Amino acid sequence: MKKIFMNFTGILIAASLIASCSKGVNTMTTNSVFPKGTLGPKEIFTGTTWVNMLHTDKEKVFDTQVYDVRFEPSTRTHWHSHPGGQILLITSGQGYYQEKGKKAQLLKPGDVVAIPPDIVHWHGATPKSEFIHVGMSTKVHLGPAKWFGPVTDSEYSEATSVH
Amino acid sequence: MKKIFMNFTGILIAASLIASCSKGVNTMTTNSVFPKGTLGPKEIFTGTTWVNMLHTDKEKVFDTQVYDVRFEPSTRTHWHSHPGGQILLITSGQGYYQEKGKKAQLLKPGDVVAIPPDIVHWHGATPKSEFIHVGMSTKVHLGPAKWFGPVTDSEYSEATSVH
Repeated sequence: MKKIFMNFTGILIAASLIASCSKGVNTMTTNSVFPKGTLGPKEIFTGTTWVNMLHTDKEKVFDTQVYDVRFEPSTRTHWHSHPGGQILLITSGQGYYQEKGKKAQLLKPGDVVAIPPDIVHWHGATPKSEFIHVGMSTKVHLGPAKWFGPVTDSEYSEATSVH
Repeated sequence: MKKIFMNFTGILIAASLIASCSKGVNTMTTNSVFPKGTLGPKEIFTGTTWVNMLHTDKEKVFDTQVYDVRFEPSTRTHWHSHPGGQILLITSGQGYYQEKGKKAQLLKPGDVVAIPPDIVHWHGATPKSEFIHVGMSTKVHLGPAKWFGPVTDSEYSEATSVH
């Protein structure tokens, strides 16, 4: 966690210095090198998301799928679990990861979340910030993700009110 | 130690931005959200590289290891292959991927390279640009990478002279 914290501190220092430059500043806040992709399915996301499949593993060589997901503010996945697990690399904005029955964790660029198989969870943006992560579904031969319905507005509000 | 290291990184970012403020231009080219990590082993890299292990999979849950690698200009891996394959996500700078016996491919941010099992290859920076990628070693239960010695200066020069 120290590693994560200091990364954010570096970004804060950078951001404050960028803000202090009067001209020629980089005003782009999104830090993703991947194109936006296509709209995320309404069946598994609440709000507007964009999914770019970076590696589908259609030919079943790597046993891993890789994708970039962009969440607009307040947007999140439904509750779900992965039989083979999932790893998230946070690349832009701020968001949350919450396991069922636990407190939500605030996520920032540079954070890595390793979600073990069969853990019911959601991830998504904070109410006021965009959120982008690379996601990897690992050991996909064990089957697709299982979905358990939306994170309700009251669940989302409770989860995100603690930070 | 990590805290100290990241403080230093924060200072570096700040220094680079202060320098750029004087000209009103942001000259920072690195687009990685991950800290630099530790020096890449001389036994498998030519030149100065930095490796940040993002997920070691020490507990063998995901069958995938994830890392961020930073190559200084002209720096490259040795020739190698992965029994379970490897996927690269290019996040900053410019570099190359070359399979033994084929032409090198120029890589830019947003590119994805899926390297099938047992394909002998190298990856690294162009002569004049830094290069950063996230790497995933997949199906790691099949064993560690196999290494076949350095990409010689003449091999590197020939590979990179075509672009």
